[in-house]
Amino acid sequence: MKLSEIGEFGFIDRFSGKFSALNKNEEYGIGDDCAIMPLDDQYNQIVTTDLLIEDIHFLRSAITPFDLGYKALAVNLSDIAAMGGTPSASFLSIALPADTEVEYMDQVMEGYRSLSEKYRVPLLGGDTTKSPDKIVINVCVTGKVLKGKAKLRSSAMTGDYICVSGPLGDSAAGLNMLLNNINPDNQTKNLISWHNRPEPAITEGLWLGRQEGVNAMMDISDGIASDLKHILTRSGKGAVIHLENIPLSEALRATSRNNTIDVLKFALSGGEDYRLLFTVQSQDFEKIKKDYNKHFQTPLTCIGKITEENPGEIMWMQENRPFVFQKGGFNHFSQ
Amino acid sequence: MKLSEIGEFGFIDRFSGKFSALNKNEEYGIGDDCAIMPLDDQYNQIVTTDLLIEDIHFLRSAITPFDLGYKALAVNLSDIAAMGGTPSASFLSIALPADTEVEYMDQVMEGYRSLSEKYRVPLLGGDTTKSPDKIVINVCVTGKVLKGKAKLRSSAMTGDYICVSGPLGDSAAGLNMLLNNINPDNQTKNLISWHNRPEPAITEGLWLGRQEGVNAMMDISDGIASDLKHILTRSGKGAVIHLENIPLSEALRATSRNNTIDVLKFALSGGEDYRLLFTVQSQDFEKIKKDYNKHFQTPLTCIGKITEENPGEIMWMQENRPFVFQKGGFNHFSQ
Repeated sequence: MKLSEIGEFGFIDRFSGKFSALNKNEEYGIGDDCAIMPLDDQYNQIVTTDLLIEDIHFLRSAITPFDLGYKALAVNLSDIAAMGGTPSASFLSIALPADTEVEYMDQVMEGYRSLSEKYRVPLLGGDTTKSPDKIVINVCVTGKVLKGKAKLRSSAMTGDYICVSGPLGDSAAGLNMLLNNINPDNQTKNLISWHNRPEPAITEGLWLGRQEGVNAMMDISDGIASDLKHILTRSGKGAVIHLENIPLSEALRATSRNNTIDVLKFALSGGEDYRLLFTVQSQDFEKIKKDYNKHFQTPLTCIGKITEENPGEIMWMQENRPFVFQKGGFNHFSQ
Repeated sequence: MKLSEIGEFGFIDRFSGKFSALNKNEEYGIGDDCAIMPLDDQYNQIVTTDLLIEDIHFLRSAITPFDLGYKALAVNLSDIAAMGGTPSASFLSIALPADTEVEYMDQVMEGYRSLSEKYRVPLLGGDTTKSPDKIVINVCVTGKVLKGKAKLRSSAMTGDYICVSGPLGDSAAGLNMLLNNINPDNQTKNLISWHNRPEPAITEGLWLGRQEGVNAMMDISDGIASDLKHILTRSGKGAVIHLENIPLSEALRATSRNNTIDVLKFALSGGEDYRLLFTVQSQDFEKIKKDYNKHFQTPLTCIGKITEENPGEIMWMQENRPFVFQKGGFNHFSQ
């Protein structure tokens, strides 16, 4: 049997149960944005890791080396943000073909350092090795969160409002432009820059992490059609999503007018948005939304509600009528 | 300029200084086997990461999937051992071609789990993704060590005895047999198994970590000709090594008789021994050696002494005459 037949999550399911007996007290492992381990009396440590492979996650011709370094760290900081945590350190493993230009790698490291400085996250170690042909980058980031305060995927409650921290689909639309050599204009070039240099929602995540009314949280890396299901499965709940409430940027709407692309497909299953997806208790929603919008430029948007019915399933609604949405999120190993 | 012209350490030198301003109190980063970060009142945390790439670090045809999983974790546990630390958790990133057999990966994970169980190290997270063609495995391991008690590369003192925790060169000789299709006999098959399934010196490292008389320590991954220089450079010391004292296994000696291979080259610069290399204060040496040999089957061997002269340099001696040893350790990016 090939991996492509069982997919990424099928593979993880095959071994994760066999390892869980080794977990100690206060340790939570595979299945959330970060693992959780005890740190000291006050804090737990959170850890995440992400692997980027040339020609799978990026094309050398479509991203500057600076952005590549920036993004490699950003996607990990986004996982720390998703737990409501503060990043503390990073570890970088890189495999490089021997004929890689030193100046190219200097730029990769400059991009990485620029984001490290923004959030004061030191680079404390790593591994550097030769690769046969592709550039391989693995980043591991540690962070901390007050004990018992990490926002988990498993904490959604019936009646919660489902919210996102910014517009969806920009990254996927940017990737689509890159892959199809669509020249960006002033309005649509933002889509490409969000794809190549996403900004992790560290400050938003920390703020949301402090709100008691925020129940479940994760970051959107595979598209909400796939990611929201992780929250639903782990919380044992269902969801209703109102498509007309999905926030879309002006840039994405403009692309749609110019190129007749399927905006909704990008917004729901495009992936790499790195926005936060979270659920808020209904009685706290209005206050949290108001306070959030005072703190942050990009408004908090409610896109639906958590339901008791149909656990693990999303009911898509468009103007109060059910909508059949087939395409799931990105699944690794599919050919 | 190509990376092959400046090598692995030349590349690291280009960026490591630019990042160090971000380090906080009690944090030590790039340059030792593990990074050190504050954990709680009593302990520091140590972190290491290692990247294995198919056709660079292993050939799929020359290692069983079980051994591949075992080794991917072992090389990281060896770094924890080298600090005198206790491993606490691991994080595994894997990129796999879509046509990889599920049963092959089940075996990889069984090997990984088998070593995880031996030292009770839970697998708490990771990343799974598609690879264009090669298998890529990155492992990150956290551990802990009493504050101020981590054994660093920078702590060697003039007059220290330089010691190793086991015979050298077995792994390189095993690799040589695999690459040249030399059929192992009963005696030499151990060389291949040490190459494919090295045993991290966790218990030895913990024991040595508790000895006040042990100054510097590291694990031998690139061969002592290269690795010892890291201790010398960081400690500002020189070394004299007596080649006749280098411990060689019976299996390695047997291979030499049968195949006229250059045993010394394997022992000094072959790499992947994963034995511990450490320095012991002269006044404590006899007691530490005696106690160590009571605790462990493989005896502690003294191979030379730390000197004040020629900082950063190794003087090789054979029966009290200088010996010119040219070949350095393995350098990534060399073509």
